[in-house]
Amino acid sequence: MLNRVRSAVAHLVSSWGAPPPRPRSPDRLHATSTPPAAPPEAPKSPPAGAGSGSGAPAKTTEARASFSRPTFLQLSPGGLRRADDHAGRAVQSPPDTGRRLPWRTGYAEVINAGKSRHNEDQACCELVYVEGRRSVAGAPGEPSRGQGLCFYYWGLFDGHAGGGAAEVASRLLHRHIREQLRDLVEILQDPTPPPLCLPSTPGAPGSCDPSHVVGPQSCWPSQKEVTHESLVVGAIENAFQLMDEQMAQERHGHQVEGGCCALVVIYLLGKVYVANAGDSRAIIVRNGEIIPMSREFTPETERQRLQLLGFLKPELLGNEFTHLEFPRRVQPKELGQRMLYRDHNMTGWAYKKIELEDLRFPLVCGEGKKARVMATIGVTRGLGDHSLKVCSSSLPIKPFLSCFPEVRVYDLTQYEHCPDDVLVLGTDGLWDVTSDCEVAATVDMVLSAYEPNDPNRYTALAQALVLGARGTPRDRGWRLPNNKLGSGDDISVFVIPLGGPGSYS
Amino acid sequence: MLNRVRSAVAHLVSSWGAPPPRPRSPDRLHATSTPPAAPPEAPKSPPAGAGSGSGAPAKTTEARASFSRPTFLQLSPGGLRRADDHAGRAVQSPPDTGRRLPWRTGYAEVINAGKSRHNEDQACCELVYVEGRRSVAGAPGEPSRGQGLCFYYWGLFDGHAGGGAAEVASRLLHRHIREQLRDLVEILQDPTPPPLCLPSTPGAPGSCDPSHVVGPQSCWPSQKEVTHESLVVGAIENAFQLMDEQMAQERHGHQVEGGCCALVVIYLLGKVYVANAGDSRAIIVRNGEIIPMSREFTPETERQRLQLLGFLKPELLGNEFTHLEFPRRVQPKELGQRMLYRDHNMTGWAYKKIELEDLRFPLVCGEGKKARVMATIGVTRGLGDHSLKVCSSSLPIKPFLSCFPEVRVYDLTQYEHCPDDVLVLGTDGLWDVTSDCEVAATVDMVLSAYEPNDPNRYTALAQALVLGARGTPRDRGWRLPNNKLGSGDDISVFVIPLGGPGSYS
Repeated sequence: MLNRVRSAVAHLVSSWGAPPPRPRSPDRLHATSTPPAAPPEAPKSPPAGAGSGSGAPAKTTEARASFSRPTFLQLSPGGLRRADDHAGRAVQSPPDTGRRLPWRTGYAEVINAGKSRHNEDQACCELVYVEGRRSVAGAPGEPSRGQGLCFYYWGLFDGHAGGGAAEVASRLLHRHIREQLRDLVEILQDPTPPPLCLPSTPGAPGSCDPSHVVGPQSCWPSQKEVTHESLVVGAIENAFQLMDEQMAQERHGHQVEGGCCALVVIYLLGKVYVANAGDSRAIIVRNGEIIPMSREFTPETERQRLQLLGFLKPELLGNEFTHLEFPRRVQPKELGQRMLYRDHNMTGWAYKKIELEDLRFPLVCGEGKKARVMATIGVTRGLGDHSLKVCSSSLPIKPFLSCFPEVRVYDLTQYEHCPDDVLVLGTDGLWDVTSDCEVAATVDMVLSAYEPNDPNRYTALAQALVLGARGTPRDRGWRLPNNKLGSGDDISVFVIPLGGPGSYS
Repeated sequence: MLNRVRSAVAHLVSSWGAPPPRPRSPDRLHATSTPPAAPPEAPKSPPAGAGSGSGAPAKTTEARASFSRPTFLQLSPGGLRRADDHAGRAVQSPPDTGRRLPWRTGYAEVINAGKSRHNEDQACCELVYVEGRRSVAGAPGEPSRGQGLCFYYWGLFDGHAGGGAAEVASRLLHRHIREQLRDLVEILQDPTPPPLCLPSTPGAPGSCDPSHVVGPQSCWPSQKEVTHESLVVGAIENAFQLMDEQMAQERHGHQVEGGCCALVVIYLLGKVYVANAGDSRAIIVRNGEIIPMSREFTPETERQRLQLLGFLKPELLGNEFTHLEFPRRVQPKELGQRMLYRDHNMTGWAYKKIELEDLRFPLVCGEGKKARVMATIGVTRGLGDHSLKVCSSSLPIKPFLSCFPEVRVYDLTQYEHCPDDVLVLGTDGLWDVTSDCEVAATVDMVLSAYEPNDPNRYTALAQALVLGARGTPRDRGWRLPNNKLGSGDDISVFVIPLGGPGSYS
């Protein structure tokens, strides 16, 4: 696994550091042939303060040998070794000297207790500049007439079956989002409703012939109103899909195997967009109140979607799996007896007579952290996993895994936030052993111990959360103060202050 | 339409008054051949107070000519004519003399303002006795050893394209539920967890060989816990499916065309189960607080499910529809331009280049009450509609309509209810013009004007709700006090007091 990840990362530096290919229309999303060539990109003109992720590829990757950690940690070779030490499990945070993360964001991470060779979580935090496409009046390649847009970006990527997908996503997903937003730069800055139809030339300011607006169809007397917000949501959704597709297209050349959960936050024009695909979690803690900003996508929470897909497309199950759910594996000697089951359209249980095909392995089995799709994978949304097959079988898992995130929107302007109001992002290493309420209590405890203007308070909070989930080495394991086992998983946490945008941006 | 409904109803009395066929296993659910013969049923032994729906078919149907109203209204021929008068739109309620509805339930209804020839809503309110199947020790036909179970049942059925489906559902759905519960009579009364597996003989007390409980599979170390509550939910879900299937099987003989939304409440062993398939709605008003007990299933709320089905099964769309959503109909001259769209996995919008196949009619179009599936139907869950085709086409609508309800459970024992706490059920005629808050205000206003023990207070409340949604004839229409249009639809309302079960049952 080590070598596979190493060669993948080395290869990425040369080819994937370039901006991703620019999609032209969604029909391209389903193409599986050779990837289109990346178009040359106009030089970036980031505004003052824009981070490194807005244009050029990250620069430090070449120096890394077998694995990498987020650039913003600014790890020395010695620091990198300490970050990779399963025995010590030292908590890593950006140095409190030098350039801080935007909004004074706090970050902390710790490697797993031996579950995998390296820390398979990755993180990214950037200020990204979006330049509009050339205007209709300009020549091709000429910059847009108007001002560009900036968005703040935070991403947590929890890899599995190797660190390749998380590594790639942490470097490229925000660029896919930027590409999707380029068509929208002028539209999002125009207070009038978005035009429903644009001329075929990208970037031309446009709305169609007004006579089209009302169609003649009886059930369709008027057009739908589409908000600016829903355009940003659509851009994020399509960016996830294009990122996933790029991984699929280039996986054979680069052998970036494995996959990753992706939890991404974007701040754009007064609103916070939280996009989640996987089992990471985001919550807002505001004046002590908890506001969930994501939900987890697992074989249990997505059971009905998975079963429906297996029911409608039985060829995806081969002759090995049944789309029905049973409370435990059916035994051959139970043929003819009646067992509890659930079909795709049921939330309750009923008894059915066991038949031969019920002896197949269930599509979804197990409970909690042990729940699996096709006995193979425990998350149902994320990026990558295109080469993942059912163990000792040629059945691909991917059709059941969706790359689409759920996006929730939080309007930052609707509430007067104080410096203790934060958005907390964590990979499942945090949430497996820490409840929302415990996180809120830690937020209160740590932040009240620091002055509101102390630039280290959010990093201190992130560290406290990671330490609280890791525990301390005791009794042959990492244990929490209550003597329960701490998380042996990789743990990564962002703490984003919500009182910040006006002051810090 | 009148004659078709008449012959269907006449036919129903003779054949569908009998109990529905007893399903043996879910695999029968997909059979489309001739329906199995209804097995002879043991004589019912309903406990004192059990209503007419528990065993024998309703008795008054033969007397009806062209349409029927709920039996419990006890309408005379003159009353039936008044109930059918579109001009007067007199509110109908059960008489305040004679046998009351269980729990002193309030009910009121009014016919539409001319939208259809008859009132296509139907209602049912019963105490249903469930006799367990014969025990393993007994001979076939012998009653179960243990005590049977009773459940209280309320159903509202909002028909469309004829009153046949609503009429049939109001007579038979609770019997399907009873049949589904018969296997569970002993299990639900046993405080130990339900057995996962039963012997093949229905009714035998059973659990399987304990050695089966833990399977050898690595991802399946233990069995799932299944609650009694989830068995009742599963029974209701399967009863809806069997009701729908019976309509499908018998539709050619009886010509019961049309379909209906179904909103059903069951009270069993301390819990209230609210099952909804369609656009009716149930809310609890408890101490002034509103607790939603259902959600509506419409082309808008189910857009993604419908689009996914069209995407996975394009043959269901013929060459006439596209599964993509556009904010308005695409015009041929817009080919090559870029228009906003949403795919099945998106909640946001993005632009795509218009291609030839985008000119097809969208699977889901329109907004609000004018939203339609395949330009044909405005609800996406319900019973019936098996003969419904896309206008001037042979494409069936049914695969997109699901008969499965969403079931929500409310534990009546977890709260000390007072006589002013009620569960309000209404067809969309109520909710189209009345908000949840307005209903809660009416609950407060009406109930506070009556003594807590007044047996008429819940009927008075139901009448007030129906009158408030209907309005009064003025300015060429039925108008509300604020001069807005009242509902011209059929309106039906149940008011179920939650302080009741202990006192009234």
